[in-house]
Amino acid sequence: METTQVVSPLAHAGFDKAAEYFTQLQLDICAGLEAVDGGGTFKADAWDRPGGGGGVARVLEGGRVFEKAGVNWSYVYGELPAEMAAHMPGDGRQFRAAGVSLVLHPRSPMVPTTHANFRCLQKGNSVWFGGGADLTPYYFFRDDAEHFHRTLANTCDAHRPVGDYDRFKSWCDDYFFLPHRNETRGLGGIFFDYLGGKGEFEFDSMFAYIKAISAQFLPAYVPIVERRMAMPFTPEQKRWQLQRRGRYVEFNLIYDRGTIFGLKTNGRIESILMSLPPEVRWDYDVRAAAGSGEQQLLDHLKAIDWLGRVP
Amino acid sequence: METTQVVSPLAHAGFDKAAEYFTQLQLDICAGLEAVDGGGTFKADAWDRPGGGGGVARVLEGGRVFEKAGVNWSYVYGELPAEMAAHMPGDGRQFRAAGVSLVLHPRSPMVPTTHANFRCLQKGNSVWFGGGADLTPYYFFRDDAEHFHRTLANTCDAHRPVGDYDRFKSWCDDYFFLPHRNETRGLGGIFFDYLGGKGEFEFDSMFAYIKAISAQFLPAYVPIVERRMAMPFTPEQKRWQLQRRGRYVEFNLIYDRGTIFGLKTNGRIESILMSLPPEVRWDYDVRAAAGSGEQQLLDHLKAIDWLGRVP
Repeated sequence: METTQVVSPLAHAGFDKAAEYFTQLQLDICAGLEAVDGGGTFKADAWDRPGGGGGVARVLEGGRVFEKAGVNWSYVYGELPAEMAAHMPGDGRQFRAAGVSLVLHPRSPMVPTTHANFRCLQKGNSVWFGGGADLTPYYFFRDDAEHFHRTLANTCDAHRPVGDYDRFKSWCDDYFFLPHRNETRGLGGIFFDYLGGKGEFEFDSMFAYIKAISAQFLPAYVPIVERRMAMPFTPEQKRWQLQRRGRYVEFNLIYDRGTIFGLKTNGRIESILMSLPPEVRWDYDVRAAAGSGEQQLLDHLKAIDWLGRVP
Repeated sequence: METTQVVSPLAHAGFDKAAEYFTQLQLDICAGLEAVDGGGTFKADAWDRPGGGGGVARVLEGGRVFEKAGVNWSYVYGELPAEMAAHMPGDGRQFRAAGVSLVLHPRSPMVPTTHANFRCLQKGNSVWFGGGADLTPYYFFRDDAEHFHRTLANTCDAHRPVGDYDRFKSWCDDYFFLPHRNETRGLGGIFFDYLGGKGEFEFDSMFAYIKAISAQFLPAYVPIVERRMAMPFTPEQKRWQLQRRGRYVEFNLIYDRGTIFGLKTNGRIESILMSLPPEVRWDYDVRAAAGSGEQQLLDHLKAIDWLGRVP
């Protein structure tokens, strides 16, 4: 179940090492999340991609902390559509991609939802990395945003110039934005793509950064879970969480490039839509009361310099 | 609240009559739905469109039969984006559009969700109609599908050649289709657009058809509600409804042209997303048991000749 036999005409020893690393990363993240959940366990679901490759979805549903947690590993290869290939580094249309992506939907509205994704791509002779991690809370706690950003920033700083927090943080704010709502999806984090696609970095230094930043996902997120998971909440606060989850669905189905690409290119539907929340509400014209905790969240759904790094 | 002052450079006496008719249609449909609900009432919410025009959303939430029912009337005008104008009948980019659209989400999984929409558009000297009605049940009752289709077909037949059930029925099956799920949104109905856009029909005969078919929405739908609303259902059947509502969200946010157009052209968000269900679930890899009522529904999510009209 854990490995899928893959045959791609592409070769790159670094890519192969990264692909192997991602299989371990998935297991490590799932183990860390099971430990903090203290009840739920991940179930593995292996799948093949008809066009080449496959993956293993690991899903925890109905946990104590996590209502739904999906951590997907995949290694896919094949031929890109011509118009897509034209916009990517590297020659030809043959590609392969390996990585881990996850979305965690906690039960409590006091615990933020989070998303992370780390991947390596190869097209022709070009190899590059993409990924990121971001935080989507339902109630605002400045400490949580600062801890999450600081943890990621420290690792980026230690891996300069590959790791570039200021650039990746802005990229995240720009990417996770809902124009029709005029708000960011959450409080941001980091987002990067095509890292090394122009040959601007040595593979080893990029891979070192990817290993370090992906290993910081649990330290960035779990302490937030631990300090919020026991907080009491009301049915009204739970309802607010379900309504806000609707925004998460709107972003993923309308704007997210990965989701749309997957759906329109015959991807594995259940793995792609694993990111959607377990329970969601759309009520008509919901508004937050002035001065409320709900309004306080809305006030922070924009690009904010959490670490005071902009002089 | 009921009328919005509008000023458009376009003129067409027929369009004006249609726009006036739609204001009454909204009131009639809301009155009919309140009668069958026997508890909930519609609340009106008037809105202005910055680019020109506006509308009145009428929403019933938390009714006895309807968990959420939205009936929107709008009359909007302005200038179309050039690339959109190029694909429509009529000269220039000035347009106006008036119509009613509705989506009803019942509380019981035995009562189908329905959508209907009737509208008149003008661009330059061209005036045309679009619209339709379709049925999205959670459990399969052949009688309901046949009644819904027969009611619409009878009215189309009485208005030939403007009303063309066979063509509009196939158009509906084609339009309300989720490629990533390889299933239709529901059991179909009718869908038509650009009716009269090439000057192929007299305005009066088109308007007579639109009045007749829109007046048949309640007779097509309400008898189905009345015979299903008192049926018992289990928590598992309710959960199946919430999971199937997820498909409704997927269709509306990924494929529906009206929704996407509205979101990307600064439309009135709450009125556009009024169509989304109140409560929705996405569970991982839900499957129906062989021979179950759930599987019976899935078996019918494809183009079906309900009335035996194809020889």
